[in-house]
Amino acid sequence: MTDRPPGDIEALIALMARLPGLGPRSARRAVLHLLRKRAQVMDPLLRSLKAVAEGARDCQHCGNISDSPVCPVCADPRRQNGEICVVEDVADLWAMERAGGFRGRYHVLGGTLSMLDAVGPEDLGIPRLIERLQAEGVREVILALNATVEGATTAHYIAEAMAPHGVSVTTLAQGVPMGGELDYLDDGTIAAALAARRRL
Amino acid sequence: MTDRPPGDIEALIALMARLPGLGPRSARRAVLHLLRKRAQVMDPLLRSLKAVAEGARDCQHCGNISDSPVCPVCADPRRQNGEICVVEDVADLWAMERAGGFRGRYHVLGGTLSMLDAVGPEDLGIPRLIERLQAEGVREVILALNATVEGATTAHYIAEAMAPHGVSVTTLAQGVPMGGELDYLDDGTIAAALAARRRL
Repeated sequence: MTDRPPGDIEALIALMARLPGLGPRSARRAVLHLLRKRAQVMDPLLRSLKAVAEGARDCQHCGNISDSPVCPVCADPRRQNGEICVVEDVADLWAMERAGGFRGRYHVLGGTLSMLDAVGPEDLGIPRLIERLQAEGVREVILALNATVEGATTAHYIAEAMAPHGVSVTTLAQGVPMGGELDYLDDGTIAAALAARRRL
Repeated sequence: MTDRPPGDIEALIALMARLPGLGPRSARRAVLHLLRKRAQVMDPLLRSLKAVAEGARDCQHCGNISDSPVCPVCADPRRQNGEICVVEDVADLWAMERAGGFRGRYHVLGGTLSMLDAVGPEDLGIPRLIERLQAEGVREVILALNATVEGATTAHYIAEAMAPHGVSVTTLAQGVPMGGELDYLDDGTIAAALAARRRL
């Protein structure tokens, strides 16, 4: 049909629709919003996207994504405090930072070990993590992997790989989330919280 | 905090979060997706957004948005069939086109009459609509405005403005939507459908 939103606009809607959290309908609404507010919304978004596309890069130390070759966490000498937090993904690093409370550095695996997808320790930068232990005087490796089978398998592997290096390996506590109501929690979480119960 | 997603990336998340249908959380997920898939997703999106920002413009005849000064509907001589469909917004025009069935041209008001916001007939291009009646040999003006108070007020005004020009003015039927279940419909719709009941 010649009379549907044409060419470039339709292409942009299709690209937006592939972003997580958007579908064809919401992508169309978003693009229409851009078209209606060109100076106020579309132009700033275009400039911002261009800046990120040109500037964003993986931190050469930890794998975080930022605007500089060394991310702000690794660039801050106060954060070399002997603790490294291992996360699967940059999203998890950001979530940890939002939560606050961790004052050390990170190591982003970029995934989990997977026989099926042929993801081995090298792909996750585990040899590089071992190098960092001595170089940065690490005393504790905190595993903040997702509470999935893949996350647990990977955590187990890393714990074994750390063993010869004399660092303490810890993991995030499992239990009832803040504000969590027992009635709405899955059985696994309740069982884990019970097993890890502590004296008040 | 120096250690949150920094500078340019945070700015991009903030801009994305302001798009309709996205919030801070989904904007962050979308931007992370872009950062992870730079070649496959971010670069095509940047190119596409640039093309749209440079190319998209309002059709000088009907107010549709397209990549050319005259939109594909107005550029197609077969669509000068004596019918003009008046819509509030480009989104409504696109919805009409997706629905199919209408083979005439459009007139996009860009809003509704509003005393409060000082939106008068000139702001909605109603004088231009009157000019088009003769220029394009219009016989019927179909009002496809939203079923809101503002839409109804504007429809009433346009119907009066068309009266001296000898065109027939119609409006979309109101009633039960396709697949609509009475139990889930609002009372107003049911009452309107009852009042407009027709013989089987």
